[in-house]
Amino acid sequence: MSFIEKLLDAARRNRSWLCVGLDPDPALMPKVDLLQFNKAIIDATADLVCAYKPNLAFYEALGVEGLLALKQTADYAPEGIPVIGDAKRGDVGHTARAYARALFEAFGFDAVTVNPYLGQDSVEPFLEYSDRGVFILCRTSNVGAADFQSLRCEGGQLFQAVARKAREWNTRGNVGLVVGATYPEELKQVRELCPELPLLIPGVGAQGGDLASALRYGADARGEKAIISSSRQIIYASTGEDFAQAARKAALRLRQEMSQYLAGAGPA
Amino acid sequence: MSFIEKLLDAARRNRSWLCVGLDPDPALMPKVDLLQFNKAIIDATADLVCAYKPNLAFYEALGVEGLLALKQTADYAPEGIPVIGDAKRGDVGHTARAYARALFEAFGFDAVTVNPYLGQDSVEPFLEYSDRGVFILCRTSNVGAADFQSLRCEGGQLFQAVARKAREWNTRGNVGLVVGATYPEELKQVRELCPELPLLIPGVGAQGGDLASALRYGADARGEKAIISSSRQIIYASTGEDFAQAARKAALRLRQEMSQYLAGAGPA
Repeated sequence: MSFIEKLLDAARRNRSWLCVGLDPDPALMPKVDLLQFNKAIIDATADLVCAYKPNLAFYEALGVEGLLALKQTADYAPEGIPVIGDAKRGDVGHTARAYARALFEAFGFDAVTVNPYLGQDSVEPFLEYSDRGVFILCRTSNVGAADFQSLRCEGGQLFQAVARKAREWNTRGNVGLVVGATYPEELKQVRELCPELPLLIPGVGAQGGDLASALRYGADARGEKAIISSSRQIIYASTGEDFAQAARKAALRLRQEMSQYLAGAGPA
Repeated sequence: MSFIEKLLDAARRNRSWLCVGLDPDPALMPKVDLLQFNKAIIDATADLVCAYKPNLAFYEALGVEGLLALKQTADYAPEGIPVIGDAKRGDVGHTARAYARALFEAFGFDAVTVNPYLGQDSVEPFLEYSDRGVFILCRTSNVGAADFQSLRCEGGQLFQAVARKAREWNTRGNVGLVVGATYPEELKQVRELCPELPLLIPGVGAQGGDLASALRYGADARGEKAIISSSRQIIYASTGEDFAQAARKAALRLRQEMSQYLAGAGPA
């Protein structure tokens, strides 16, 4: 089963486009072992999400032990819920191949995020895993995104050039894009440029992105393929012993809100 | 001691701007344990180089064990030789902080490479470690580099915009740039834009970059700060039991060539 099929299956089964970001930060986490924390969050939300998305930074920051917990977390996620390794890697061809091996084989992620700055031959080794998903950074959710991504270039702004290239590179049907909810206008433009690609949309919640416009502009014509990624709002809903129940409540609330906004969409 | 002082010290002491890339690839390596391989290469070349540069991809591809060997390699490198973690990371602010912690604290690298696509707030958490070096990808050595880095934008090509911003961000004196030896014209332009920054120059050797022009265009007015990174040409000079001696011979040869090309340079 390809990544996109697995994603659509999970989203339809759970009636949810919510992706929970598993970004353990010792400064925000309850006092509990990292792997136990992730397992508890997964157990509490597995019927409410379309995907999980661990960001590798938070595991690398904990050294080798953190990476061991990352691997165990990826293994623990239920078979029917895809895991997106948020790695934002990008390197020259033969090195990119090593990263692809690391992420798809050593960690076993269903999909990854990659950085487009090095161009096609840096993305191609990931795309060759045709049953896996590859989300290319397009217009990110942070303030600094404007520094380069919004530069006016030949044929539009840089992020538009990236969106066009991503579409061109999608010969195996496994390309997606990352577009921040914090920039609804840009999100709308990307969706217009790439009507068929799944969009991974971070920035709702702690970063200030608006959920309604993220779905209105991010979803495709069927009201699908807008993966709303939320981390802190869910996993740190409580920092007490009830963190897992609190995460479930926050996820339920977010799914409920999303279904309201999506109710008006759907196939014409 | 800051990274740039440590780098200049090593380069002057060893009369070398050679940086050996520690990129272990099981398909190319002699049959020997990864950590033993790196240690043998370091022992054989520590008086001939200005830095070591492990690329994290090759360690991640080996899973948690590979990353353990990376940490042990970084710890093993002699005190006087800086280790550049070639990670090409880039993420939004609070996540970039986790990556900076991972690379500078968990692994303890003296410098890292970062990807500029996410802009200033993705680079700043690295720059805050003012005693460490931060090499920002500018014009990379691969074919795909042209896809985005050479797009004509407001005020020049994208890589030139990156070079200008990098200079602007260099308030702590710890910024460098990555520019491939495979594009001498672009290298010359970057050196003109940033006369004072150290340039990390991959692409000589296996990738086809020319050493003479890499030094002619990459070195500063004193004939310094052009870090010539070579990996496969050195570490796989032999795949037999004599790999370490062969690596030493290859490094000696490269240093000798470099000193010829640099002889004409130096302070006026």
